[in-house]
Amino acid sequence: MTAQLRVGILGATGTVGQRLVAMLEGHPQLVVTAVAASDRSQGKTYGEACVWRLPGDMPSALRALPVRSPEPPLDCDIVLSSLPADIAGPVETQFAAAGYAVISNSSSHRMDDDVPLLIPEVNAEHLALIPRRRGFIVTNPNCSTIMIALALAPLQSRFGVEAVVVTTMQAISGAGYPGVASLDITENVVPYIASEEEKIERETLKILGRVEGPRVRPAEFPLSAQCHRVPVVDGHMAAIRVQLGRKAEPAELRDAFTSFRGVPQELGLHTAPLCPILVRDEPDRPQPRLDRDAGGGMSITIGRIARDRVLSHRFVALSHNTIRGAAGAAILNAELLLAEGHLRLRNVH
Amino acid sequence: MTAQLRVGILGATGTVGQRLVAMLEGHPQLVVTAVAASDRSQGKTYGEACVWRLPGDMPSALRALPVRSPEPPLDCDIVLSSLPADIAGPVETQFAAAGYAVISNSSSHRMDDDVPLLIPEVNAEHLALIPRRRGFIVTNPNCSTIMIALALAPLQSRFGVEAVVVTTMQAISGAGYPGVASLDITENVVPYIASEEEKIERETLKILGRVEGPRVRPAEFPLSAQCHRVPVVDGHMAAIRVQLGRKAEPAELRDAFTSFRGVPQELGLHTAPLCPILVRDEPDRPQPRLDRDAGGGMSITIGRIARDRVLSHRFVALSHNTIRGAAGAAILNAELLLAEGHLRLRNVH
Amino acid sequence: MTAQLRVGILGATGTVGQRLVAMLEGHPQLVVTAVAASDRSQGKTYGEACVWRLPGDMPSALRALPVRSPEPPLDCDIVLSSLPADIAGPVETQFAAAGYAVISNSSSHRMDDDVPLLIPEVNAEHLALIPRRRGFIVTNPNCSTIMIALALAPLQSRFGVEAVVVTTMQAISGAGYPGVASLDITENVVPYIASEEEKIERETLKILGRVEGPRVRPAEFPLSAQCHRVPVVDGHMAAIRVQLGRKAEPAELRDAFTSFRGVPQELGLHTAPLCPILVRDEPDRPQPRLDRDAGGGMSITIGRIARDRVLSHRFVALSHNTIRGAAGAAILNAELLLAEGHLRLRNVH
Amino acid sequence: MTAQLRVGILGATGTVGQRLVAMLEGHPQLVVTAVAASDRSQGKTYGEACVWRLPGDMPSALRALPVRSPEPPLDCDIVLSSLPADIAGPVETQFAAAGYAVISNSSSHRMDDDVPLLIPEVNAEHLALIPRRRGFIVTNPNCSTIMIALALAPLQSRFGVEAVVVTTMQAISGAGYPGVASLDITENVVPYIASEEEKIERETLKILGRVEGPRVRPAEFPLSAQCHRVPVVDGHMAAIRVQLGRKAEPAELRDAFTSFRGVPQELGLHTAPLCPILVRDEPDRPQPRLDRDAGGGMSITIGRIARDRVLSHRFVALSHNTIRGAAGAAILNAELLLAEGHLRLRNVH
Repeated sequence: MTAQLRVGILGATGTVGQRLVAMLEGHPQLVVTAVAASDRSQGKTYGEACVWRLPGDMPSALRALPVRSPEPPLDCDIVLSSLPADIAGPVETQFAAAGYAVISNSSSHRMDDDVPLLIPEVNAEHLALIPRRRGFIVTNPNCSTIMIALALAPLQSRFGVEAVVVTTMQAISGAGYPGVASLDITENVVPYIASEEEKIERETLKILGRVEGPRVRPAEFPLSAQCHRVPVVDGHMAAIRVQLGRKAEPAELRDAFTSFRGVPQELGLHTAPLCPILVRDEPDRPQPRLDRDAGGGMSITIGRIARDRVLSHRFVALSHNTIRGAAGAAILNAELLLAEGHLRLRNVH
Repeated sequence: MTAQLRVGILGATGTVGQRLVAMLEGHPQLVVTAVAASDRSQGKTYGEACVWRLPGDMPSALRALPVRSPEPPLDCDIVLSSLPADIAGPVETQFAAAGYAVISNSSSHRMDDDVPLLIPEVNAEHLALIPRRRGFIVTNPNCSTIMIALALAPLQSRFGVEAVVVTTMQAISGAGYPGVASLDITENVVPYIASEEEKIERETLKILGRVEGPRVRPAEFPLSAQCHRVPVVDGHMAAIRVQLGRKAEPAELRDAFTSFRGVPQELGLHTAPLCPILVRDEPDRPQPRLDRDAGGGMSITIGRIARDRVLSHRFVALSHNTIRGAAGAAILNAELLLAEGHLRLRNVH
Repeated sequence: MTAQLRVGILGATGTVGQRLVAMLEGHPQLVVTAVAASDRSQGKTYGEACVWRLPGDMPSALRALPVRSPEPPLDCDIVLSSLPADIAGPVETQFAAAGYAVISNSSSHRMDDDVPLLIPEVNAEHLALIPRRRGFIVTNPNCSTIMIALALAPLQSRFGVEAVVVTTMQAISGAGYPGVASLDITENVVPYIASEEEKIERETLKILGRVEGPRVRPAEFPLSAQCHRVPVVDGHMAAIRVQLGRKAEPAELRDAFTSFRGVPQELGLHTAPLCPILVRDEPDRPQPRLDRDAGGGMSITIGRIARDRVLSHRFVALSHNTIRGAAGAAILNAELLLAEGHLRLRNVH
Repeated sequence: MTAQLRVGILGATGTVGQRLVAMLEGHPQLVVTAVAASDRSQGKTYGEACVWRLPGDMPSALRALPVRSPEPPLDCDIVLSSLPADIAGPVETQFAAAGYAVISNSSSHRMDDDVPLLIPEVNAEHLALIPRRRGFIVTNPNCSTIMIALALAPLQSRFGVEAVVVTTMQAISGAGYPGVASLDITENVVPYIASEEEKIERETLKILGRVEGPRVRPAEFPLSAQCHRVPVVDGHMAAIRVQLGRKAEPAELRDAFTSFRGVPQELGLHTAPLCPILVRDEPDRPQPRLDRDAGGGMSITIGRIARDRVLSHRFVALSHNTIRGAAGAAILNAELLLAEGHLRLRNVH
């Protein structure tokens, strides 16, 4: 007899859905019992409906699972949602209303007052926003925002943050499948990702804000984001300048990064990396291909910490956009909800 | 009988040297009469020594030219130098001392007091730095700096510039040949280019500075550069934030860019583009693969002009790094020197 | 007063459609007077409907042209069709029935008995298949097939061909837009292109066959094709082994290639390259990025000619797949039809 | 007290050397006790001398190991050599003469009569070539050859092989570091890899030959190889046609591949994959990025098995070129030598 939480995945055939499935294989507490998709997959098994695009094979246990329509009821205790933005909003509301805990990677509800926009290492206390009823929604941030907010969190608490300028170079997997046409990105850079700059500018401030009564009072520093798509498969990079609230040696920023730990590390959550932030001292790191898998894809890597001539400091950050930036983020959120008593395991024979 | 200037190319077998050779084919005034290289090429013909790496074929007229050692005398009136940085310094000094006009793409002498760091559209008046003797050195800036300074020039004159934050995504051809190892850059981004950030920060201020007596008083605004190598063959991109000296609508910046003209346009220099700065209004432009060849590679392209939340405005700039950023820059400098009377054509039968 | 042929382009917003538009700009005889597309573009102008994906700008003369539905009547004398395969068949039949000459890049009618599958340098005599009526269809081959048949033609006529083994490495532009997902092809090779192997095996034999009465009797040698997609933007490459009908030195093959000329060269057709087949002797050529634009994209380039251990000889061929392999092929077909009297210019004031 | 074999790595700072180091971390029998390199690394520690280019970090246990000159004596029982071809020959001879077992990935001695060219699953019986003395050399084949010979082995034994035509598309890591210049391979294919075609044609026949007295009598079928470099980081692909000795359904080839096992599987060697050859039935597999890590990089993957129009059958094979094709091949050879009693563990306290 083991204690488990039965998970339904919405958007299970997509890029992030496949990552969720892969990361949950062999998970000690979370077991996938239902898959749903919005496309023409319904009526097929997951093995038939899903063209597996990750290295290796689809977990064999899920091959025979029927693909359901993304609407309640679903044979599970909670749902992890990576539905496309255009349908995620009402579907997630519907599941929450039906009493499911919805842990979502989609953008639809991130800015809702009663929805935590959660990075467990950064703002676990935002769980206080969850309404006291069975069904609710918890979201993780946009794939670039997670990295940026995670990097800023230790700076904010130790030095204060007064302004941030971010320039991203983002991987193609962030756009899902088929996503970016190869004719657009091969041997090229595209200086535009729809709504991305706005998401980063808005979400980061909510995450780094503070719960005041029934909502979050966002952080108040100005933040500027310019976003670019580059021909990299996985791994978002951000060149970041920051104006800190007080003078600081670059070595102090380094120490703030490497010593940073959060609730997931204290609680020893299954998917939590030992160090949320790694620092590399080589002059040419981090790099997507070499550093994206650090900490099983759940650590971000920072390098090139230095003084800046316009703001006070600068550095480069890198994160695996479909692990720490999406699927792993959602799973870590689920683990935190479990550990904090917002979800309960049920005994299974 | 035609009037010509006989050109020797130093570093003729390298990436920029080949571009110089290609761009000078059929030039109405400049004719290549000597090629020199620092490597083991000497004693061979140019056709034997040079593995041609541009599309198409080496100009057939140069195949039989013997490759000389890069030292005077050389059978030419002026030298265009794209020697590697480690040997360019003394060699160029030696040629200038021997009475040659040296038009250099190398970084060695760019910050010398009596050497103009020239972008003909931007600071033609810096030619006043040239000493009154037969031999002298004129340099063009670093490949990224040219684009940045060209983009800032109309903003500086119309609005004033108070701070600049630049993040570059640079093409592999900027590193010459063999340059960047494919194992380092395939499906990757490298957040480091040796000395590049310092060059941009230093050279831009000299270019936008003003001649005061025997030297340039550099512009005084702070400038921050973070540089990245991306898997693009040709075309440097820069995400630029700027704090302007007065309030301005984005449309005013657009107008400042598109209406910008310089001395080369007034004089109708052969290699000058009609418009030094093009603006594209599509949300996803400029892109290296689509825009690098605009204006024959001599126009830079700007897009995504908008207000910024930290500095006052932002935009994205793109330039062909081996044409406008190197070979074309040197040739345009030569054309300006001719037009301004610093060089004189000789009659050839 | 000039003599012109008024051209309508079917599928004008697609990858090949844009190439047609670009190549016809400034054409001495063919002028685009109508554009049609099968998608949601109708009712818009070409400038509004078409996201231009070639370097540079859309020809300004076409910006205001309204996008029509691909059905007769259309304001033109002939139609060039690059419609998607799923709709090209009946549409082209309809235009031919309405009296238009249809010059098609689509695969639907290529194997029809009364439709020439034409490479003007190779089988101009197949024009005899055209029925004696006003409306008819002439097709060009698949983008890989053109290169393969063009390479085999001089071997067949000089040595005889007994067997051919082809392995292709094909560019992403061959799949149109959006075509290949970047997640599928970045840092990857895909050993599959739908129907491509069958097309090459079938079309090559028709092209190299001989007209016997109302149809073509295909060439009879066995041909094997394995096709791969590689992360290259433009330029299909083929590794080819061939069993010749008699002993031959590699130098004899070289000579057969370089001396090959066809009807377009004799007639001096506008789009015909001086040499349909170029040979490069460097050990590492041809390469897509360096050789695809040879002859304005209309010459194929061959290299690495050698004896083979299984068949008798081998070599590598390269061709620009959207110029010689598609748009340029169709235009050359139109020029041949004009020159041979199958089409007639009309005087325009 | 554990039983171990102390390993010295020659060429430890190179691409394959780093793979060897990474794969031997935590190996149950082989422990790295010495590292040597031919370059300017000597006198430094491995941590100082080696720029680690694999994802993740250098094994920390090796950081402090001094880099030695590649000459005996070295503090180890056997040496694994991945020295550059130009120096491997005499160095390996010297180590063998000094009594070391040399397990080499270099090409220098592969064709020597008394040197097995070993793929443990294919020709373990070639160990009979080893001379009866303490020092000897055992080699693994060229990275492409391993995959080709492994794929042909079950066909040869079940059907007979009469001719083979191979066309490779090879990854950049096969050329070591810095290896292929990014300017040569970005958005490109290079149809040339020095000596590669000859190695494949020669080595495959030795591997598939039979020991007759003191040497191998090579297999006698003709084999043709054409080799290409493609912009893929890891994973060599080969399009293979084969003329079998008897008629066979494609399903019989499939069965021959999937049921193939060798000595390493029987002995349960540590680095041996469960299945040396995997077959995928999707029409678009294998692909380098998705399949190179199958079986920990030690399984090759085959797909697209079909009849061929010129030879009798065709298929596509894929293998991780620096694991199964180099470092893993050498380690598996060492494990086989241990298991077969050619090497002996020593007890370590």
